[in-house]
Amino acid sequence: MSAQAYLRNCWYVFAWADEIGAAPLGRTIIELPIVVYRGKDGLVGLEDMCPHRFVPLSRGGVADGVLECAYHGLRFDGSGRCVLNPLGDPPEAARVRVYPVAERHDAIWVWTGEPGQADPELIPDFGFLTDPARATVTGYTYAHADYQLAIDNLTDLTHVQFVHRDYQASEAYPRLEHRTWQEGEDVFRAITFPNGRPAPFFAGIMDAEKQIDVTMETRWSVPSLVKLTARVTEPAKPEAYLMGNDSAHLVTPERPGACHYFYAHSRDYGVGDPEVDERVREWQRIGFGEQDKPILEAQQARVRDRDLLKMRPVILPTDAGGIRARRILAKRILEEDRGAAPAASQASVDGGLIDR
Amino acid sequence: MSAQAYLRNCWYVFAWADEIGAAPLGRTIIELPIVVYRGKDGLVGLEDMCPHRFVPLSRGGVADGVLECAYHGLRFDGSGRCVLNPLGDPPEAARVRVYPVAERHDAIWVWTGEPGQADPELIPDFGFLTDPARATVTGYTYAHADYQLAIDNLTDLTHVQFVHRDYQASEAYPRLEHRTWQEGEDVFRAITFPNGRPAPFFAGIMDAEKQIDVTMETRWSVPSLVKLTARVTEPAKPEAYLMGNDSAHLVTPERPGACHYFYAHSRDYGVGDPEVDERVREWQRIGFGEQDKPILEAQQARVRDRDLLKMRPVILPTDAGGIRARRILAKRILEEDRGAAPAASQASVDGGLIDR
Amino acid sequence: MSAQAYLRNCWYVFAWADEIGAAPLGRTIIELPIVVYRGKDGLVGLEDMCPHRFVPLSRGGVADGVLECAYHGLRFDGSGRCVLNPLGDPPEAARVRVYPVAERHDAIWVWTGEPGQADPELIPDFGFLTDPARATVTGYTYAHADYQLAIDNLTDLTHVQFVHRDYQASEAYPRLEHRTWQEGEDVFRAITFPNGRPAPFFAGIMDAEKQIDVTMETRWSVPSLVKLTARVTEPAKPEAYLMGNDSAHLVTPERPGACHYFYAHSRDYGVGDPEVDERVREWQRIGFGEQDKPILEAQQARVRDRDLLKMRPVILPTDAGGIRARRILAKRILEEDRGAAPAASQASVDGGLIDR
Repeated sequence: MSAQAYLRNCWYVFAWADEIGAAPLGRTIIELPIVVYRGKDGLVGLEDMCPHRFVPLSRGGVADGVLECAYHGLRFDGSGRCVLNPLGDPPEAARVRVYPVAERHDAIWVWTGEPGQADPELIPDFGFLTDPARATVTGYTYAHADYQLAIDNLTDLTHVQFVHRDYQASEAYPRLEHRTWQEGEDVFRAITFPNGRPAPFFAGIMDAEKQIDVTMETRWSVPSLVKLTARVTEPAKPEAYLMGNDSAHLVTPERPGACHYFYAHSRDYGVGDPEVDERVREWQRIGFGEQDKPILEAQQARVRDRDLLKMRPVILPTDAGGIRARRILAKRILEEDRGAAPAASQASVDGGLIDR
Repeated sequence: MSAQAYLRNCWYVFAWADEIGAAPLGRTIIELPIVVYRGKDGLVGLEDMCPHRFVPLSRGGVADGVLECAYHGLRFDGSGRCVLNPLGDPPEAARVRVYPVAERHDAIWVWTGEPGQADPELIPDFGFLTDPARATVTGYTYAHADYQLAIDNLTDLTHVQFVHRDYQASEAYPRLEHRTWQEGEDVFRAITFPNGRPAPFFAGIMDAEKQIDVTMETRWSVPSLVKLTARVTEPAKPEAYLMGNDSAHLVTPERPGACHYFYAHSRDYGVGDPEVDERVREWQRIGFGEQDKPILEAQQARVRDRDLLKMRPVILPTDAGGIRARRILAKRILEEDRGAAPAASQASVDGGLIDR
Repeated sequence: MSAQAYLRNCWYVFAWADEIGAAPLGRTIIELPIVVYRGKDGLVGLEDMCPHRFVPLSRGGVADGVLECAYHGLRFDGSGRCVLNPLGDPPEAARVRVYPVAERHDAIWVWTGEPGQADPELIPDFGFLTDPARATVTGYTYAHADYQLAIDNLTDLTHVQFVHRDYQASEAYPRLEHRTWQEGEDVFRAITFPNGRPAPFFAGIMDAEKQIDVTMETRWSVPSLVKLTARVTEPAKPEAYLMGNDSAHLVTPERPGACHYFYAHSRDYGVGDPEVDERVREWQRIGFGEQDKPILEAQQARVRDRDLLKMRPVILPTDAGGIRARRILAKRILEEDRGAAPAASQASVDGGLIDR
């Protein structure tokens, strides 16, 4: 697999919805410079490059509901056509590539493939992010690491014992149970820390001597979208729910060796409590920005532009989810390269089969 | 056109005259490291690399009127010969390439081609820079942008309405008139903002309600030397001069994708008034350093090492000057590469023909 | 000679001994990422990359006397075998390359070639570094310069008159005597400043008007290990010792165009005086970090990835040592590439012949 290979016919998260305000936002995803703005007819996604002198359109502003280039004032509407040339007729040839954009689950999604296939229903379900009964905290970090390294990280949460030791190390770790299964093209992993006292993360939230089970289930969807469901229950009683949270880990490749990482944490306790919000925000900032990210970047420095799987890594049973995800993605990319790809689903399909 | 192609048989600005004091100054122009110093016999330009261990000679100092290497003390005079070896005879083989240098219009010019063709009379006229009746403020910025992007910028001043909006946006912009002509190999452009109130730049200098014409005329000379004449006149009375200024915009390629930009602003009002000096200096710093430069660098990030014209840009009538300048320069470089180039002029030739 | 060519069958300094404490230390030498830690059975050197997910092992810690990966907690002992997998059996395939390590002369040395040839007796003698009757101050700097440029610097100390002018410029410089000789594969140089007043470095240590001889002798050993012996004596009486110091200059290539520079200064005066320690430390920091290093880095920017000797430098008599060292090293590398290299000595061989 060449390092430049990304799936194109899919939705990538471009930004959190609240990042797109009055000003246009430019970002590069799968090596494509794209600008998104809110225009008079809604969200617009365009190639971030004026066809006149190639200045990024994201340097400009939104004027009368359309995007104005910062250099000579050419304006482009949501169809990519030049609708205003301040000193003459808009040139017919002045056209900018249009990218389908969708706003869903409080995120802005961009479709980088064939526009005709851009169906927002293909976006996996992250409905918990907009559940008014929950409190959601979002964040973003940029990592000098390939997005596939982030997939590996998210599909094997056994790393929390070491990378997030100060928050999540559990005395139950040596007894950890884990399994891997697949539903359609979604890959699921669950790890359970059985019958142990709460990890440091729960200090002040839960009795430090209480025995609990903690289960973290991840659902990976094409291309690099992970839902994580964490549940605390009475030991050996999965139905005896104590508390939990859902989180979203939405990784967008920027270019080989660099990715955008959009994360969100959604809880059903302490809703409306800004102190808990702040505590979660701090955990995200440290956990992702100061613990995961340096690991991924250090990995990247070793792996460089090579395909990790071709480096003959030692494979552990806990890698089952990550390996499966990489293979599904590689197959999808290959099919797309060969032109055989239908508008395949990014979302989970019912009736998946379980395996290890 | 390859990205490495520069015209060699021409004068490039190396520095402002006051940059060359007691210490040698090293700078790279058209990928050539060059050091200039004031020696006992005047200005000297040498390859900025000692032939002994290849340390830049600009790291050394001027001793007894010649350049001394900082590493082992070899000294080189204006002919590039080693004239002192502290521990023995100066080696005959120790020779440094000499570059012709001229001091003119308060700038230091270096000839990068055949030394025998280095005639200072080829330097275009920027005599206003040393006119004692005028006040001149100079400056410098370095841009991570190809010098040809700077030429485009300077030969199409319609960008001032957008890039320098806070200083120069005019209500007369939609009625802007412009024309392009050529005299010899010099390309001229004039844009006129007819019959409008003064732009913000004139606040405090001119009655805010007065109706004026503003004309900005640029003369581009090979390779990347622009004189800009700005004139404010009574509406439709070009002869009714109110005020004006001349400015020089002297761009020197450093390497592909990076250039030196020497600018100077010369006015015939407020001469001797340091407050006006400071105002002009501030405008230059912001206008070129914080407004033009980020645009050029953002362009460069999109264009990268490609030839802009081969990227099939949309061409507007206002690009006529820039396109013409690029073509003249490309033709001159091609002739030089083929060895057919005589010591052609950089300066304007009388009796040019006007065209659009 | 290709820029990637290093001698592999030799000892390189990896760190000063006091840099390796409770935590593992990662460093790249001759393009090999290596981690060194103190384990239950002593010093261990391993490839700095976990075979599971390729995270640098140096990001982890030492647990129960073995190295633990920071990502998933795999542990590796001094033989490079995985001895603990927290969630299952240690995979047999999880093996890390082992590098022989030796602690000698207060430095940590790593052997980058065939382990079977790693004999610590090959390390040249720097015994003065651990002489309890002397005071030794060590330091480290990293330079963006090829290690061979550092060899040139250290084998021709005539540069001190210019590069370290403020400390070491001597009025005796024009009368400087120098000679070059070889013992086995060690290259020796001696320079003498005869019959002059003390350089500024001696201010406060020695009468400013006293006439002295200063001799600096360097012994270069394969690959880039220099011992410098400085002696101050009565004029023309080498036996009339006044004071002196020995210093070590141990250069380790990191990659083409970058090196580690470990230096140490050992004196037999002011032993136990922290003020003198500080004075020496300051001199090292300025002399190597702010005077030599910028010169070497400026050279590197000119030489780039070229072989300096193929750039046809002017050769001075004072270059004799450096040229000889480069040639010996090139020959050794070539022999090694051809597989003809026995476990050749890095250390001095008695009975060398003297030549110029």
